[in-house]
Amino acid sequence: MPDCIFCKIIAGEIPSTKIYEDEKVLAFLDINPINPGHTLVIPKTHSEDLLTASEDDLVAVIKAVKKIAPAVVRGVGAQGFNLGVNNGEAAGQIVNHLHFHIMPRFEGDGFKLWGGRQYKEGEIDEYAERIKKFLISNF
Amino acid sequence: MPDCIFCKIIAGEIPSTKIYEDEKVLAFLDINPINPGHTLVIPKTHSEDLLTASEDDLVAVIKAVKKIAPAVVRGVGAQGFNLGVNNGEAAGQIVNHLHFHIMPRFEGDGFKLWGGRQYKEGEIDEYAERIKKFLISNF
Repeated sequence: MPDCIFCKIIAGEIPSTKIYEDEKVLAFLDINPINPGHTLVIPKTHSEDLLTASEDDLVAVIKAVKKIAPAVVRGVGAQGFNLGVNNGEAAGQIVNHLHFHIMPRFEGDGFKLWGGRQYKEGEIDEYAERIKKFLISNF
Repeated sequence: MPDCIFCKIIAGEIPSTKIYEDEKVLAFLDINPINPGHTLVIPKTHSEDLLTASEDDLVAVIKAVKKIAPAVVRGVGAQGFNLGVNNGEAAGQIVNHLHFHIMPRFEGDGFKLWGGRQYKEGEIDEYAERIKKFLISNF
């Protein structure tokens, strides 16, 4: 994709700090990390997001994440990590090339997960029904 | 796993609002959603986290996420979603059974991603070297 910054990184036209590469996947360090070692894992084939990526690419990326995440954690001496994908502008996606964030976490680093709320009575079932209408499921 | 709340949900011993099920995967609504429709996708086989899950289960879960996420987004009328895994207590993991969060997002809902910082000069390469020591990579 000509104007895609991640495609340019894959092509070597823009420099990056690569930590892993295989036939289908590239991983490199995010230049604005929430913590040192914050890594982006991307399919080499351009796809805008998780929904439009091929199943093959998605499988390749998650297999790579499973290899890379423990190395990130050990390499930076973290105690855990958050895996994240921001899908769509409303979710904070900025670069329109599917990328998985591996964010190493240190006890007491201060990052907070988003707080949840409670459903009103009956509301959870209504939402489930709405979602199931769009799913082909075996139950 | 006898004391695992998600294993009990899979076994039907604890009720849940299921939206999808296949041979290897179950998806149900989080009872404390950040937004309505917030969904958890889990492998039926117990594994503590992403690192200890089998590759097979992880692939089954990500394939299910690709099916479920668009239904969640359309079902609740969202504009995007965040996919997230909290791996380890330091990352906010509370239930020690691997689970992927699908969090529908609405423009202006106010949830903010964690802000990044800048590496000092040379620092990014040092971290990359540390991580690569723990990776078996083809470059």
